[in-house]
Amino acid sequence: MSRYRITIEYDGTPFIGWQRQAEGVSIQGALETAIRRFSGEAPGVRGAGRTDAGVHALGQVAHFDLEKTWEPGRIRDAMNFHLRPNPIAVLSAARVDDTFDARFSAVKRHYEYRILTRRSPPILQRNRVWWTMRDLDAGAMHEAAQVLLGKHDFTTFRAAQCQAQSPVKTLDVFDVSRQGEEIVCRVSARSFLHHQVRSMVGSLKLVGEGKWTRQDLADSLEAADREACGPVAPAAGLYLVRVDYE
Amino acid sequence: MSRYRITIEYDGTPFIGWQRQAEGVSIQGALETAIRRFSGEAPGVRGAGRTDAGVHALGQVAHFDLEKTWEPGRIRDAMNFHLRPNPIAVLSAARVDDTFDARFSAVKRHYEYRILTRRSPPILQRNRVWWTMRDLDAGAMHEAAQVLLGKHDFTTFRAAQCQAQSPVKTLDVFDVSRQGEEIVCRVSARSFLHHQVRSMVGSLKLVGEGKWTRQDLADSLEAADREACGPVAPAAGLYLVRVDYE
Repeated sequence: MSRYRITIEYDGTPFIGWQRQAEGVSIQGALETAIRRFSGEAPGVRGAGRTDAGVHALGQVAHFDLEKTWEPGRIRDAMNFHLRPNPIAVLSAARVDDTFDARFSAVKRHYEYRILTRRSPPILQRNRVWWTMRDLDAGAMHEAAQVLLGKHDFTTFRAAQCQAQSPVKTLDVFDVSRQGEEIVCRVSARSFLHHQVRSMVGSLKLVGEGKWTRQDLADSLEAADREACGPVAPAAGLYLVRVDYE
Repeated sequence: MSRYRITIEYDGTPFIGWQRQAEGVSIQGALETAIRRFSGEAPGVRGAGRTDAGVHALGQVAHFDLEKTWEPGRIRDAMNFHLRPNPIAVLSAARVDDTFDARFSAVKRHYEYRILTRRSPPILQRNRVWWTMRDLDAGAMHEAAQVLLGKHDFTTFRAAQCQAQSPVKTLDVFDVSRQGEEIVCRVSARSFLHHQVRSMVGSLKLVGEGKWTRQDLADSLEAADREACGPVAPAAGLYLVRVDYE
């Protein structure tokens, strides 16, 4: 048996999310179908992050096992052939040790969230950004975001359906910057709660609009109460950018 | 009567091109429909560049006349409302002098052409780039492109159906650079022949692959013969970025 790690890009728009479900096309399901078609084997695929419907990935990582040993470049090319016309591509494939686990071996996950601030709707970035007509104060957002860094109980920013055992996580990076008409948020942590990034970005947008202060954000974190969260940011602006391993 | 100038972004993928035709949806036609719906008037819309099917615009410019006088911001918002769900947006609108003509008053047009060079197919950039699995030498492409600058007979890089009176044009800028996995070509001139940018980029790709030298490109220009052109680059990688006026 050989274990393979793949790095994947996808456009989350047409999918029900990463995870296989009874109805609809999932990214996990599309990958498993592609593996079955080229190899004749039917392994399960495990991903580093279970992205929601509409969330994109530039560098999701997953692993699976095959009885037969393949040259990794052939796995990449064969999967890309069989993944068509799904908007999913395998960027790279590598043979890894049996102890490697895409989910549990990950030491850091990097997400990006993009907000388009302009009067006119997104066109070339349709389904790729959160569109707001109001301008946002990126400096105030960045400054406020720093109160979220470190080890906290993130219950405020956690979806009701979150299955994590503990709401305590350690946030390493939360940078907000303006890039032309866009506000780009870069967030890194070992792991995240369900909807954590979108919940934090939605609350931070209130800071960008001047409706919340840095202290309001600190208070909402402190409350450890889902009711204290701002509106959750939509899926379309979120990207799983990279996953780091030891 | 009042004349209005609009700046437009569009995703060229679903359109038959800028120009109205007997069959299919054109960008010009979609804009004219949106104007009719909000104003009740039916003016013709003239654009700065008649982009082909699949070609995108970040800053196309057009003009039209209305009997009634409108606040330009209302024109922008009303057109954006009525343009849905077409992937076209009016970025800005302004009232202009009757002598302004989007096509004939333009003093410079700026295009960008994007080539994705990697083994795996484009996903988030699908329909937005020319995909090639082979790496290209951006430095060699840039160096060779400089032989195209200045005033030349561009017959080699002109489509058979081109309606320009003369094949002589003056090329001001042709910069080629690498940005991550992409090769980006930036081209500027007062005006271009039909398919000129795509013909030049297609020939330049041969230089990037090492199949043509800088001298081969110079010879093909010198030949002033359509047969001397490399393969024409596909529409999907081309963007009309900006149009300058006096």
